[in-house]
Amino acid sequence: MTIRRLSVYTRCLLQLEEDGIKTVSSQELAERFNLNSAQVRKDLAYFGEFGVRGIGYYVSGLKAELQRILGLDREWAVALVGLGNLGAALFHYKGFSRQGFRIAAVFDDDPAKIGRELAGVPIFASRDLAREVKARGIQIAIVAVPAESAQPVTDQLVAAGLKAVLNFAPARLKTPKDVRLKNVDLSIELETLSFYLAKGSR
Amino acid sequence: MTIRRLSVYTRCLLQLEEDGIKTVSSQELAERFNLNSAQVRKDLAYFGEFGVRGIGYYVSGLKAELQRILGLDREWAVALVGLGNLGAALFHYKGFSRQGFRIAAVFDDDPAKIGRELAGVPIFASRDLAREVKARGIQIAIVAVPAESAQPVTDQLVAAGLKAVLNFAPARLKTPKDVRLKNVDLSIELETLSFYLAKGSR
Repeated sequence: MTIRRLSVYTRCLLQLEEDGIKTVSSQELAERFNLNSAQVRKDLAYFGEFGVRGIGYYVSGLKAELQRILGLDREWAVALVGLGNLGAALFHYKGFSRQGFRIAAVFDDDPAKIGRELAGVPIFASRDLAREVKARGIQIAIVAVPAESAQPVTDQLVAAGLKAVLNFAPARLKTPKDVRLKNVDLSIELETLSFYLAKGSR
Repeated sequence: MTIRRLSVYTRCLLQLEEDGIKTVSSQELAERFNLNSAQVRKDLAYFGEFGVRGIGYYVSGLKAELQRILGLDREWAVALVGLGNLGAALFHYKGFSRQGFRIAAVFDDDPAKIGRELAGVPIFASRDLAREVKARGIQIAIVAVPAESAQPVTDQLVAAGLKAVLNFAPARLKTPKDVRLKNVDLSIELETLSFYLAKGSR
């Protein structure tokens, strides 16, 4: 099962919980959120212990279990590297803190930014990365620097002992095998739409 | 097959092409880009006509076919709605234009921005949406406004005849059935990383 689907199910279950719904079948879940019902059934079968025959799954129990698997039952200290437009947008992105990702330090080499604070979070020069990663127990880094700076910054993050990097820079990064690197390519999302538009015009 | 996987294969094939590689087997593709090899084999089998027994697939031919399916063999005029931090970051995002998505107009209701240009692209008030969508042949909109403005803006886009909306606002939007809505949730990407970190610490 892809981890992305676990994230999607978790969001659906959160929504159901907010709507006051206690139990849900895989088919109801699929219909309500426009998911592939065979896939949902197969995926959720793995969590049979949270199911009740003929009824479906307990929304809260299943949600809590998926959150635990995704590591969302705890808080993660995150470093944000790069405070340009994208970095600033990510800093203010509400979804991160809602899922337990707390930006604990920002790194940017603009002298006008170093030493300041953003909503209480300190901004450091990148040369302070290793020190602050250790001091603040940072475990995940978000890279939002220009493409040409992405590899040197990532090398510093790896040297500082970080094992998880989320990269928004349009650059192909190299990391050691024990470091999880996830590249975000925002144009992939647009391609889902152009696929349907192109299909409609054929 | 999910459309997202088609996008991923297209990127891998582009990379192989840049590296001067002419043919690739599904197993080589999977190994080189850390993909699930059974999945790749199954997905690509669908494009058998671009394959050569015992060799694999013609990189350029398969790439061109996937691009055609994804609607990347043409240019799409895109409206960017909202020019805050995230909107500005998306405006400057290189990946969009590289895949044929051209931002043809920006909409923002900040009086300091209306009537100006950003890298040659005009900025309009949202009340001009319908007029400009028609005048500029815009087919896709990117919504990057605050959560509370996302639904009214989307209603305007739908009224203007748009059939494809990419939403970055953390809001649950309602659109008619014939409008493709894709919500981007940036924290899903972080969850892939926390999953692995949590797994490692169990």
